[in-house]
Amino acid sequence: MKEVVTGVDIGGTNTVMGLVDRDGNILAEASLLTADYPKIQDFVNSVAEAINEMHKKAGSVNILGIGIGAPNGNYYKGTIEQATNLVWRGVIPVADMIEKKTSVKVVLTNDANAAAMGEMIFGAAKGMKDFIVLTLGTGLGSGIVVNGQMVYGHTGFAGELGHMVIVPGGRACGCGSHGCLETYASATGLVRTVLLLLSEMREESVLRQIPPAELTAKKVAEAALQGDPVALQAFDFTADKLALGIGNSVICTSPQAVFLFGGLVNAGELLFRPLRQYIDKYVMPWYRGRFEVLPSGIKEHNAAVLGAAALAWNELFI
Amino acid sequence: MKEVVTGVDIGGTNTVMGLVDRDGNILAEASLLTADYPKIQDFVNSVAEAINEMHKKAGSVNILGIGIGAPNGNYYKGTIEQATNLVWRGVIPVADMIEKKTSVKVVLTNDANAAAMGEMIFGAAKGMKDFIVLTLGTGLGSGIVVNGQMVYGHTGFAGELGHMVIVPGGRACGCGSHGCLETYASATGLVRTVLLLLSEMREESVLRQIPPAELTAKKVAEAALQGDPVALQAFDFTADKLALGIGNSVICTSPQAVFLFGGLVNAGELLFRPLRQYIDKYVMPWYRGRFEVLPSGIKEHNAAVLGAAALAWNELFI
Repeated sequence: MKEVVTGVDIGGTNTVMGLVDRDGNILAEASLLTADYPKIQDFVNSVAEAINEMHKKAGSVNILGIGIGAPNGNYYKGTIEQATNLVWRGVIPVADMIEKKTSVKVVLTNDANAAAMGEMIFGAAKGMKDFIVLTLGTGLGSGIVVNGQMVYGHTGFAGELGHMVIVPGGRACGCGSHGCLETYASATGLVRTVLLLLSEMREESVLRQIPPAELTAKKVAEAALQGDPVALQAFDFTADKLALGIGNSVICTSPQAVFLFGGLVNAGELLFRPLRQYIDKYVMPWYRGRFEVLPSGIKEHNAAVLGAAALAWNELFI
Repeated sequence: MKEVVTGVDIGGTNTVMGLVDRDGNILAEASLLTADYPKIQDFVNSVAEAINEMHKKAGSVNILGIGIGAPNGNYYKGTIEQATNLVWRGVIPVADMIEKKTSVKVVLTNDANAAAMGEMIFGAAKGMKDFIVLTLGTGLGSGIVVNGQMVYGHTGFAGELGHMVIVPGGRACGCGSHGCLETYASATGLVRTVLLLLSEMREESVLRQIPPAELTAKKVAEAALQGDPVALQAFDFTADKLALGIGNSVICTSPQAVFLFGGLVNAGELLFRPLRQYIDKYVMPWYRGRFEVLPSGIKEHNAAVLGAAALAWNELFI
């Protein structure tokens, strides 16, 4: 019987699941629409059912554990706490509930920590003991690994690098603060930067034809590839702010590498070219050449499930 | 026979040493003038001699190990590397040299990490697993403890929070970068801030009577206690920048407490009152009330020796 774990990624839109072996092969997959389950017990029941279905599909496997990645996931308590983009309010003991329903051991963490675990067990951080993963999506999530261990901190919510204040009094952030890194270095941040630049620059731009509410990072990247001056400047501005955030993170835990993951990273050299240049501008000179900034080694499609599965492999069986 | 370790703090001016028992009692002390020994072997010989003398003075003790705190100390290699305020250039294998000379096991780290160890073993961080120590002296040093372990990182030089860039393009820093936290939040930073404020404010101030080269943090604190408006504003400005640095550190490793240590902390409420106010301004709102900012629990006079001794107790015998 092949040994597997179940990786479960709970997202605002979809919950995706997979049975994953020790080498990172996904043997079966399933998904739910998270918002279809306003009652958490209904959600738990459906997750358990989906796991059963995958088990049948995969044949003779032995499910050793379940790893869950979720927004605002508390590793210590196995809870999801005050997640603003999920349907359930308050503190949800989701790990205990799924463990009770499935009789399989469950471990849970937040989605960015799960991404870092995925990078360590199945991705480009294999063999590294000190690294940081930044997920540049709608917001900016992060997972910090020190000496081979995920940093959870006193509260279980360490690694909120997206809320490092890099512009005091700057852009309003969803967290209630101002000038947080994620208001600049994320897909949403890129769009906000385009609006700023449209106010400051006089150049023609295709981005002036798109209603702000319809602007996306993807459209900005497409314009940049066509040489649009505002779009190019927006990537330059974003890279500058991201470089400042990376420089300030590197002096903290001195990682071997910082991995970038998520939608914004698909822009490739549009982001990486200016980023490399600005990192040397901000990081303490001694650190230059003593760490790398690299794209994630995990395919985006599989990342969420692999990250959650990596958590289970790492926490339950090492 | 009582068991002790030797704590050695190598500073630019003095090297201080002590025999320290498990409870943090100092049974014998000694010191050297570091700059009297331009040849490292002469220094090592004199340290060994001083340890012998202390051993005689303390009577029947068994020295189990030697802990060393030093500027730019590399924990992994036991070396002092490119320390600009020491007389020796290049990479100095001081741990190996002292171990060879004394036949006692030696462990070495940088002075701020040693201070954090002292706080953990003998000070106010006893029993805490996640905390940060900031030493506010001429510069700003830091030691970060995560899950009960000192963070050394890939290079051995993690925890350089003094070189977090908080004002992009700001004050020139000795590290070669600009706008580093320590150029604002340190004794030297406070003096630089006074000079800035003297240029901006029109108020009378006793600080206008002192040549800038003779200004010290102590003189600024004395003026502030007399109600001097420029001195008071300088502490306010310093607290604002320090709060930003603390907020950005807290979101990284989520410590239970941030301990402040060193000359600038002697200003007491002059610093702490505005600091408490500004921390709420900068830290991600979720973290408010989830960590404390506290003065160190170690007396400044003993701190360097206790920190180095704590390193030895922690690393060699746990």
